[in-house]
Amino acid sequence: MNSEQEEQKKVREVIDTWLSATAKGDLQTVLDLMAEDVVFLIAGQPPMRGREAFATATRSALQHFRIEGKPDIQEIRIAGDYAFCWNYLSITMTPLKSDDGAASPMRRAGHILSVFRKESDGRWVLFRDANMVA
Amino acid sequence: MNSEQEEQKKVREVIDTWLSATAKGDLQTVLDLMAEDVVFLIAGQPPMRGREAFATATRSALQHFRIEGKPDIQEIRIAGDYAFCWNYLSITMTPLKSDDGAASPMRRAGHILSVFRKESDGRWVLFRDANMVA
Repeated sequence: MNSEQEEQKKVREVIDTWLSATAKGDLQTVLDLMAEDVVFLIAGQPPMRGREAFATATRSALQHFRIEGKPDIQEIRIAGDYAFCWNYLSITMTPLKSDDGAASPMRRAGHILSVFRKESDGRWVLFRDANMVA
Repeated sequence: MNSEQEEQKKVREVIDTWLSATAKGDLQTVLDLMAEDVVFLIAGQPPMRGREAFATATRSALQHFRIEGKPDIQEIRIAGDYAFCWNYLSITMTPLKSDDGAASPMRRAGHILSVFRKESDGRWVLFRDANMVA
């Protein structure tokens, strides 16, 4: 495995860890995988700027849903201390408490273009994210 | 101006040329500013892959509309032979022929996250584009 492949593998591991932590409701692990000044661009919504904004939005979602994501990574390219990734993500959101017993999982899917940044300690973190999961 | 600033300026010029050529209906100039294997990720639509697919889709639009774009560039970062750009783009589409005399311009705006690639001759071309102009 050459150096580029090693870095690609690390970026892929960030995505896998992100999704498995999300499925477990482990928000802190997810927050550690993004830059403090991360920006999420979301179709039809204003940008979500910063780790704290993500935490606020996601904490609420995780209290109500089990969120399982399945990545289908189309491409990861390493460019110095940045990497970008094109991912086709499928998400299943299952209500945690179903008062009426009839709530069923919601499925969504869409493309994501992400930029990762390599930190001084060699860890990759999410930096910019254009999310078109509809 | 240091080397990074010079490259940022070149990327900015690609965007400006793209928009001015689009406004003039000069499709060939726009096509020359993208990689042959460019991919456009568009909210709510399947990816548009390759220069030819873009040409087909855009040729038709340019026959019916004057398309004027106003960029508000939030960030350009250079990483080796790649660059990425976060842009907030406002678009006005004005019908070229108004049969009923009542067609008015359509205005749209949204965020775009783009990856540019530097070609061996030093030119920057659009490589990946996540377009959330709604």
